[in-house]
Amino acid sequence: MSRLTLALDVMGGDIGPRVTIPASVSALEQDPMLTFLLFGDSEQIEPLLADVPTHLKDRLLIQHTPRQIDNNQGIVYALRHSKGTSMRLAIESVQKGEAQACVSAGNTAALMGLSKVLLQPLKGIERPALISMIPTVNGERTVMLDLGANLECSAEHLYQFALMGAVFAESMLGLVYPRVALLNIGIEEVKGYKSIREAANLIEKQTALNYTGFIEGNFLLNGKADVIVSDGFAGNIALKTLEGAAKNIVSLLKGSDVYPARTSVMKRLVSSLVKRLFKQGYQRLTNMNPELYNGASLIGLNSVVVKSHGAASANAFTYAIRDAALQVRQDIPNKILIGLEKLKR
Amino acid sequence: MSRLTLALDVMGGDIGPRVTIPASVSALEQDPMLTFLLFGDSEQIEPLLADVPTHLKDRLLIQHTPRQIDNNQGIVYALRHSKGTSMRLAIESVQKGEAQACVSAGNTAALMGLSKVLLQPLKGIERPALISMIPTVNGERTVMLDLGANLECSAEHLYQFALMGAVFAESMLGLVYPRVALLNIGIEEVKGYKSIREAANLIEKQTALNYTGFIEGNFLLNGKADVIVSDGFAGNIALKTLEGAAKNIVSLLKGSDVYPARTSVMKRLVSSLVKRLFKQGYQRLTNMNPELYNGASLIGLNSVVVKSHGAASANAFTYAIRDAALQVRQDIPNKILIGLEKLKR
Repeated sequence: MSRLTLALDVMGGDIGPRVTIPASVSALEQDPMLTFLLFGDSEQIEPLLADVPTHLKDRLLIQHTPRQIDNNQGIVYALRHSKGTSMRLAIESVQKGEAQACVSAGNTAALMGLSKVLLQPLKGIERPALISMIPTVNGERTVMLDLGANLECSAEHLYQFALMGAVFAESMLGLVYPRVALLNIGIEEVKGYKSIREAANLIEKQTALNYTGFIEGNFLLNGKADVIVSDGFAGNIALKTLEGAAKNIVSLLKGSDVYPARTSVMKRLVSSLVKRLFKQGYQRLTNMNPELYNGASLIGLNSVVVKSHGAASANAFTYAIRDAALQVRQDIPNKILIGLEKLKR
Repeated sequence: MSRLTLALDVMGGDIGPRVTIPASVSALEQDPMLTFLLFGDSEQIEPLLADVPTHLKDRLLIQHTPRQIDNNQGIVYALRHSKGTSMRLAIESVQKGEAQACVSAGNTAALMGLSKVLLQPLKGIERPALISMIPTVNGERTVMLDLGANLECSAEHLYQFALMGAVFAESMLGLVYPRVALLNIGIEEVKGYKSIREAANLIEKQTALNYTGFIEGNFLLNGKADVIVSDGFAGNIALKTLEGAAKNIVSLLKGSDVYPARTSVMKRLVSSLVKRLFKQGYQRLTNMNPELYNGASLIGLNSVVVKSHGAASANAFTYAIRDAALQVRQDIPNKILIGLEKLKR
């Protein structure tokens, strides 16, 4: 594994440094080749590093800024007043080559907006997108994009998403000729928006892409495709619906129930028995833990940028960091450029 | 309860009469005030009625037709060649006043297309929609529309959906001043399509509607709204994603696991213990059984039309029939007209 420096906006997210700092320390422990530039308020950061051993602290460099991006007045205002904020400084450090990737749990639109301006879309990519992985019931993973960066998408945009998704799936999931599907409201050719039907034609004709047709919402978790392509509106709704459903159903089972104390021992016993006997099922459910699927990535830019959930736990933020490192090591932006060249041929 | 005659297209769906006929017989047993006109191939229908007691059979009238709607060549072809098909005859019987509502498990687009032409949209309604209920984790139900009838929707369309959804929720769920939310990719005012933001303004200004703001995909099951309004594309994707997630997660837990025979007794024992101890959670999960939520309805027409899932079981088709009967008894179309009048004031 290669040495990497990542720029972390540690102020973003609902909780900020109290989540992102422990997460950063875990990531350093897990990956000895990582170093971090931490962008944020040193008064908040330093106390959280007090008990961290020196050999880890040496791999962190705090870049103090008291300023944070302000989303309360809309994205235009946020971008216009972004100078000196932790998010912008983190992205600028990637722009200058001081870091190889940026991770933030801050506002998605601001992160995308600043990244597009400062890091620029890859040559030939019209619309960078948000990409993430979802777990499947057969224990595999499926890549999904766009998840909210682009509401309305032309056929050409969807076609480019298909390419970016395929490159991502090949590199990050180690797949050969990943199966690409378009999210739609039916599988018949006549279904859906005109842009989706035209995108289907473009993707189908392109032998570099392994197109398998339309996919409906009820098959997202079934492993029928390795890459699911969608406009940002439907993709965002679908992903969040999945997350909400998984969370709610699991919490229903785990028991928001209130029981008298005397049954609680019994309940624990049964829980543990269930876990043992239904091991495979439980394992798969655990694999569906949203923490493991934190870290939507901005794809189609010249550098790697990973967006963590605003509500991410420390564990989840650590996964986002690891995800960013893996994308840099897999050289995703460059592979997309090569992929674009292939499409032209 | 009032006497009702329903027109059933018994040929629709993946299986046809072998599902729809037993379902119809169950519905007759459960509701003594119902009679049915059954549209379909009598050669297939009659053998399935052989063992049905006379007092039930007397409430069925078979309207023989060998013809079924053909969707293989697209919706335009299907509509043009629909004369004499079981679906069209069923709708025509409602048009003539021989039946008060129609139920079919056939093709949704064909059912909507024929219903619009033969039954006509309610005066003032620009776009009839597909509406359904989803269960919530707190044991309640939420109404959702549009689920796929209208891909692109203007603010005015969404506004009318909000009204129709509110009338539906009031009557079918017995709610006063139901909370209306718009499905969007964020809860901030600036999020989403222009049409959604404009619809938010229209609904918010209208005091007859209890608008609560935008709702994201991850909160669909949380009972935060009684009516969730969406364009047909996103609504269809969201509903199917919910269905798929619920089905997959429950089946993961119930054990697609393969176990040696000796553990199966133990497994059954634990299963039954779990059901006992986690009773409330299990009950709620059972309430989420998609069978109970079969029957998307076409709303905004002069008569009640219910679309059952193509893959519906006999149980599920029975629920669709009961749903249609309830909508007629609740006089939903007329209540929507009254609601439209109120909005104008």
